[in-house]
Amino acid sequence: MKIITAQAPVNIAVIKYWGKKDENLIIPLNDSISGTLSMEHLCATTSIAFSNEFDSNRMWLNNVEVKIEDNKRLVRCIENVRKLAESTIGWPSDHHIRICSKNNFPTAAGLASSAAGYACLCYALCKLFEINDPKIISSLARLGSGSACRSIYGGIVRWIAGYDHQTSIARQVITENEWPEIRILVCVVNDHRKDTSSTFGMQLSCQTSPLIKYRAEHVVLEHCDQITKAIMERNFEKFAEITMKDSNQFHAICQDTYPPIRYMNDISWSIVNLIHFINNLFGYNVACYTFDAGPNACIYCLDNNVPILIKSIRRMFQKSDGTELAINGITYQTDQINIDQKLCDYIDIRKRMGDDLKYIISTRLGSGPKILSNQYDSNCLLSANGLPKN
Amino acid sequence: MKIITAQAPVNIAVIKYWGKKDENLIIPLNDSISGTLSMEHLCATTSIAFSNEFDSNRMWLNNVEVKIEDNKRLVRCIENVRKLAESTIGWPSDHHIRICSKNNFPTAAGLASSAAGYACLCYALCKLFEINDPKIISSLARLGSGSACRSIYGGIVRWIAGYDHQTSIARQVITENEWPEIRILVCVVNDHRKDTSSTFGMQLSCQTSPLIKYRAEHVVLEHCDQITKAIMERNFEKFAEITMKDSNQFHAICQDTYPPIRYMNDISWSIVNLIHFINNLFGYNVACYTFDAGPNACIYCLDNNVPILIKSIRRMFQKSDGTELAINGITYQTDQINIDQKLCDYIDIRKRMGDDLKYIISTRLGSGPKILSNQYDSNCLLSANGLPKN
Repeated sequence: MKIITAQAPVNIAVIKYWGKKDENLIIPLNDSISGTLSMEHLCATTSIAFSNEFDSNRMWLNNVEVKIEDNKRLVRCIENVRKLAESTIGWPSDHHIRICSKNNFPTAAGLASSAAGYACLCYALCKLFEINDPKIISSLARLGSGSACRSIYGGIVRWIAGYDHQTSIARQVITENEWPEIRILVCVVNDHRKDTSSTFGMQLSCQTSPLIKYRAEHVVLEHCDQITKAIMERNFEKFAEITMKDSNQFHAICQDTYPPIRYMNDISWSIVNLIHFINNLFGYNVACYTFDAGPNACIYCLDNNVPILIKSIRRMFQKSDGTELAINGITYQTDQINIDQKLCDYIDIRKRMGDDLKYIISTRLGSGPKILSNQYDSNCLLSANGLPKN
Repeated sequence: MKIITAQAPVNIAVIKYWGKKDENLIIPLNDSISGTLSMEHLCATTSIAFSNEFDSNRMWLNNVEVKIEDNKRLVRCIENVRKLAESTIGWPSDHHIRICSKNNFPTAAGLASSAAGYACLCYALCKLFEINDPKIISSLARLGSGSACRSIYGGIVRWIAGYDHQTSIARQVITENEWPEIRILVCVVNDHRKDTSSTFGMQLSCQTSPLIKYRAEHVVLEHCDQITKAIMERNFEKFAEITMKDSNQFHAICQDTYPPIRYMNDISWSIVNLIHFINNLFGYNVACYTFDAGPNACIYCLDNNVPILIKSIRRMFQKSDGTELAINGITYQTDQINIDQKLCDYIDIRKRMGDDLKYIISTRLGSGPKILSNQYDSNCLLSANGLPKN
């Protein structure tokens, strides 16, 4: 009997992954780059137990049982680990696993939880079977959910598109300590629409968008190289510009898809326009936005500019009960911050009433996955009988 | 003393013009194709008087005087006509013109009125000086506002991008009588935002969008050829598909511009999604949407499908005072029309309350510009003293 409990982080891409050249192996059309967020504020936690006392493999996600055999990607991750385990501790045929996984952030928030989830599952599974090469863990996570391969490293991470299972892996660009001033504000939009899933959306884009191939072949590599240079030089100005351009182009590809896909709504756009107004007013890039396959804005900025951004966003998005928009995560003093009159005027005529934003998660770059425990303890999500604790 | 009063139509592009290769001559990056709308419902009317009794050239647009010399494009149109007049009736140096122009549709509607306006001005001016070659009139209108060159012909019109002043002209694809079933529903969105002007927007796209050149060089010609074939074959199914794809791609280019330009808002998108839902439900393209540089939807469809579309749009967009959304233009009986239950359910959960649409203009394809009168009469917008009548 072996047991392990691990945590893995969420990542937010600044150069977007959209479209696969191999659907089965999840080989993307182009490289992508993301920031790994601190697990203090956003993470997945997974416990895996391995024993001959279990009669079958079973899994629970956020307290609901998931049928493993119905999920091709889950089966693929487990089967690949089983094969690799032959050269480590082995996987006797009378042994089975129990998996229990949870997120520490609301799943209803529409944040890409599958990246953290698959990174955590594959990391825990590999560690359980003493498979320690991060390249192998990254490529296994990719088989679960493409962008999960980036959550295997902390700091800023590049997923090299590659051409097969071994070459399509993530690599760290810098650690979280090498650019400590970076902050991320995740603005969670109150949105009830069911969005087009990423998997379906990117398939449709590949099939119907005349522009996606041009983006993949002629634009993204340049974006990757420019932003890598900007990261190396801690040039936030350039980092922000490329981030916004790449997010915009990803959504342009969605719009060029047939039927068109829309993830950004009027609320998302009010944040886009606010950021451009602030950057223009200050004369430099105070912040940049990036949007994944949903309406939530992720704002990258430097530590010293968080208070003015929070103050501006709070002024723009009024709560209907009169309270201030909640900021979860890193706290800031904003009482002493004064907003320029021009910015006040801009916001006041565009003010949105009525809970368009749920809350903001204020966080920083963080490390890659970690092992919380190797035994049955309070961290473990499974009880000794291989069932979820709750 | 000579006087003329002319009318010219609005046109709505199905293959979009966006971006110039020559800013001065208004030579576009690519060909474009549009439907000319019936002047019964949407048109510009212009009266021009020419006399040695006037001491200067003056102009009024919708009852407000416009300083001609401040408007480079206006000067360019007039100067070009003056030169051409040398070989016709001449333009003695002691003669001046008075121009009075009006639209029969609300300018606040955000409908591209400059195309109709410049087409009308150039048509009237040319006719006044006995310049009758439509190619010349079309290229002059282009110097005023690019897409105005298409309003010189009725039916469906293609603007050949060309490479200089003579070659960048519009040509008729079919007359309005050759596909009489075509209908256009202009859905006027209640929107108070000031949009990015087309002139500025397309300059910014050319300067910053990596995708615009690819669109112009590799996609639009194919769209033009495919849609021309569909028009020739009266194949509405294909016509609709290409129209939607081209509109989507134009807005993708806007999104890929830096900073990004957005013309379509949540209201626009609710119409996009409704049209795709209806097409999908019926199993063929009942209608297609196209959006210019603003949030208004223009829906192309065939005559027999207008009632179901009107009924659906009216159900989706409720007026806050309980009355039904107004339909101007061609009237239809919709009392007997039943909406499929699935469509009702779709609409009911997406219903928009609160006057998001102002009204719909229901129209058909129409003819090119025409002369209303060659004398001072009730059609004339100017009085005998060369000042506006009102």
